[in-house]
Amino acid sequence: MKIALSQINTTVGALEKNRDKILDYYKQALDLGAELVVFPELAITGYPPQDLLHQGGFVENNIAILEEIAHKSRQPILLGFVNQKNGNLFNSAALCTQGRVIYTYDKMLLPTYDVFDESRYFEAGSLPGVAEIEISAKKIKIGIEICEDLWDDDYGNKVTELLEQAEVDLIVNISASPYHDGRLLDRCGLIERKVNKLKIPFIYCNLVGAQDELIFDGQSLAFNNSGQLIGQGKGFKEDLIIVDPENGKKVDIKLKSRPEKLYQALCLGVKDYFSKTGHKEAVLGLSGGIDSSLAACIAVDALGAENVHGISMPSKYSSGHSKRDALALAHNLGLDFSVIQIENTVKSFEKDLYSFFKNTIPSSAEENIQARIRGILLMAFANKFNWMVLSTGNKTETALGYCTLYGDMNGGLAVISDLSKKDVYVLANWVNENSGKSRIPENSISKPPSAELKENQIDPFNYEVVSPLVSALIEDNISAQELIEGGAQKELVEDLVQRIRINEFKRRQAPPGLRVTSKAFGMGRRYPIVNQFRQKINK
Amino acid sequence: MKIALSQINTTVGALEKNRDKILDYYKQALDLGAELVVFPELAITGYPPQDLLHQGGFVENNIAILEEIAHKSRQPILLGFVNQKNGNLFNSAALCTQGRVIYTYDKMLLPTYDVFDESRYFEAGSLPGVAEIEISAKKIKIGIEICEDLWDDDYGNKVTELLEQAEVDLIVNISASPYHDGRLLDRCGLIERKVNKLKIPFIYCNLVGAQDELIFDGQSLAFNNSGQLIGQGKGFKEDLIIVDPENGKKVDIKLKSRPEKLYQALCLGVKDYFSKTGHKEAVLGLSGGIDSSLAACIAVDALGAENVHGISMPSKYSSGHSKRDALALAHNLGLDFSVIQIENTVKSFEKDLYSFFKNTIPSSAEENIQARIRGILLMAFANKFNWMVLSTGNKTETALGYCTLYGDMNGGLAVISDLSKKDVYVLANWVNENSGKSRIPENSISKPPSAELKENQIDPFNYEVVSPLVSALIEDNISAQELIEGGAQKELVEDLVQRIRINEFKRRQAPPGLRVTSKAFGMGRRYPIVNQFRQKINK
Repeated sequence: MKIALSQINTTVGALEKNRDKILDYYKQALDLGAELVVFPELAITGYPPQDLLHQGGFVENNIAILEEIAHKSRQPILLGFVNQKNGNLFNSAALCTQGRVIYTYDKMLLPTYDVFDESRYFEAGSLPGVAEIEISAKKIKIGIEICEDLWDDDYGNKVTELLEQAEVDLIVNISASPYHDGRLLDRCGLIERKVNKLKIPFIYCNLVGAQDELIFDGQSLAFNNSGQLIGQGKGFKEDLIIVDPENGKKVDIKLKSRPEKLYQALCLGVKDYFSKTGHKEAVLGLSGGIDSSLAACIAVDALGAENVHGISMPSKYSSGHSKRDALALAHNLGLDFSVIQIENTVKSFEKDLYSFFKNTIPSSAEENIQARIRGILLMAFANKFNWMVLSTGNKTETALGYCTLYGDMNGGLAVISDLSKKDVYVLANWVNENSGKSRIPENSISKPPSAELKENQIDPFNYEVVSPLVSALIEDNISAQELIEGGAQKELVEDLVQRIRINEFKRRQAPPGLRVTSKAFGMGRRYPIVNQFRQKINK
Repeated sequence: MKIALSQINTTVGALEKNRDKILDYYKQALDLGAELVVFPELAITGYPPQDLLHQGGFVENNIAILEEIAHKSRQPILLGFVNQKNGNLFNSAALCTQGRVIYTYDKMLLPTYDVFDESRYFEAGSLPGVAEIEISAKKIKIGIEICEDLWDDDYGNKVTELLEQAEVDLIVNISASPYHDGRLLDRCGLIERKVNKLKIPFIYCNLVGAQDELIFDGQSLAFNNSGQLIGQGKGFKEDLIIVDPENGKKVDIKLKSRPEKLYQALCLGVKDYFSKTGHKEAVLGLSGGIDSSLAACIAVDALGAENVHGISMPSKYSSGHSKRDALALAHNLGLDFSVIQIENTVKSFEKDLYSFFKNTIPSSAEENIQARIRGILLMAFANKFNWMVLSTGNKTETALGYCTLYGDMNGGLAVISDLSKKDVYVLANWVNENSGKSRIPENSISKPPSAELKENQIDPFNYEVVSPLVSALIEDNISAQELIEGGAQKELVEDLVQRIRINEFKRRQAPPGLRVTSKAFGMGRRYPIVNQFRQKINK
């Protein structure tokens, strides 16, 4: 029994393109002798289609395309689509063979938390997915699951157990499971536990590719009925693997280092966001600091150095090393590099504002003007040459609001907004070690971080302490009270919590940021701007 | 039987402030002889609390506050809070009397569409809310509903009928139902139909006040068992009304004109966003055009003229009438007015960019620089003096992307982003008619709209045609095909659909905009940026 896992990169809304890709992989799989060809969740529409599901013609077109695919089917093919019954939508799987759809299954467990909104769109199916197909002249009862159906811990319906009760010979799960750090081992552990208990082979076919903030990592998995891994799809790349659950040999799981995975995820995120929105070239401001250096490196690896433009925009507060480090980086990466002095334009604004500001104390108002001039310049290039601006803020500063709205926050995509400052250092060092040379200048890594918006400014945070605290507050949802009980300084924690709360208004206007943790800012974290809640801290 | 409808303005997260307001209204109601005092949905937490529900201590504090309120109760009080059972959250109502919580009901129907995300947070209750209390020495069985429970058409559970089956004497619905055009009559019609069938008095207590994009209109309602309206709370204001379902006299429904309601809604939206985020003063760019004029007028009525700063920022393309009309508006409204010429700063940018742009065709790149300089100047004032920038784009241009990201889109709040261009005219005219004078200069209303970003530019749309088409596409979700079949020009509709699709990236970074229609951009419309769906248009 040869099963193909077609780990494809679909595009939301590109129904015809997705169809063509499905049929192309289907043919390749059959050529390789596959007897069942499996595609990811919602392969026809792309995932997640969001409110496109409410747009006239969308669901109907997706069903018409399913019919086309079914019409061309010979050996069984299993793929995700949107089903419509009595005016209700379902996140469904279709099993097609011999020219027609022979079975459809509606997803039972609909994730509605973090980045997932499935209850907004879909009704839950009420029956487990069990279908019979003939493979190698043998009748096989397959159990069909869609993504969340596997993660049944928090639900009343235990879908995998229902499939066992239905005495299936094989379970196939079609997924669109986004990457975040640690996700592969979560999936492996969960499937292994289930297979060890149920003794049924398990095929897990995951989507690959990026969609707005989300990055799907592929890394499809196949287990035999002893819970041994017998196949694994590539990470962050399309793949087609063929497995035989009855005769497959155990393989060792391929694990990459954490920095490598994070880096590959971000590269895929940038690459797909550009190609899927019809962009080719990126422009970003190079300050000589570690954040913009890392972002530039990712952009170069995602888009090619010839498609990345770096601009250094020094003001009178920019240090010599900033200008030198930016130039060195551009040289190392081989990207197009320009310098624009912003001092005259700063002066022009100061003149415009002089009569209003003359008796005031210098504040962030003056500092932000510099960041915003840079933002305007980058956007001018983007508008003129159809480039996309990349913003380069990290998660720690995004959390604390240490960034300028309409300034350095400008961009079509935030490349590293889900990397803590700590992880920015980890990745920068990894980039250099991995390439065997200092692509990112050592000085950009070792010098104290500074926005250089006023004389002798350095960032007002000890990132060694602050970065993990912010990660604990956001990603692990640890309360201020618990952090303080765990030894963190009370005043510091209170200050961080306050900054996170009052800077929601900035993040609401941030570009989409690539998600690589279990809790990123953006669609998966929905805080009110008007928010007068103060965590009570005893002690 | 005297029932008080306490239509209060709560603040999300302000648990103690909300408690104090509840207790204050409770006391007032008892002083007026109330025997049952009713408060809106989630009165303790404010609505919607969004992901604050996941923040450590939030739910626990809300329960502690419920206990405090219960402890102070004598006559029955019914109010909304978040209940927690076995790790699950419920959107619940508590009935308190004689110092304790005597009954809790968990909302059965959880709206999860448009701006609502309740399935993200809450489990649905499984039993209808029926409790017995003593009023005037008489036992009364009251049926309790929470908001969506009333709107049961699309749900299997018919909550109001379940209450009738339980033979309740009275139904009380506690709501947080946001305003949009036509909402009051929707509610009245629905309740009347139910009461006419079931012959049970119906009390509907709605929240008032604004929370981020949402504006709750109050307008609480009370019906006797013949389906006659016997009480109505004010629109867009706090109110406390006392009704007697057994002896109440029929009253006529108070209906305001559509422009008046829209205008009052927007004023409340601005007022609450400022006061609840700790802001007092607003600044906005005055172009002499109708959009910024209307927004300024709303700001003045919401915040007081002394708290509104208008800045005219003419470039060399600004016409004489633009400058005159802006000045006339400022004079009419009595607001602080300044003029900053931006020409020198435009030249400074042009100089910075000269070597890069010299052989290119002038494009939106140059035009946008002007809008972005204005954006920087407004933000400089906001940063310096702790004012908030108001953005003034309308819904039609927001839909079509006819606006400059990081330019005129800058702001903490978008005042009229949910008003079509057509409605901007309607409201501007209403403002003048209603005040009996030309607060908005007639010339701002009658002249052709222009962004004035280049020589002799006027907006490239016939808004008479385009504005209703865009409204049909967004608000009524009518497909391109249907519009064309209805007589709209094919090329125009295709162009509009394409513009709406490709400008999602701009809207994603827009400030929150006040919602006054059934489908606003923002939290209630979730379209992907990467979106390759093309509506098929036959013919």
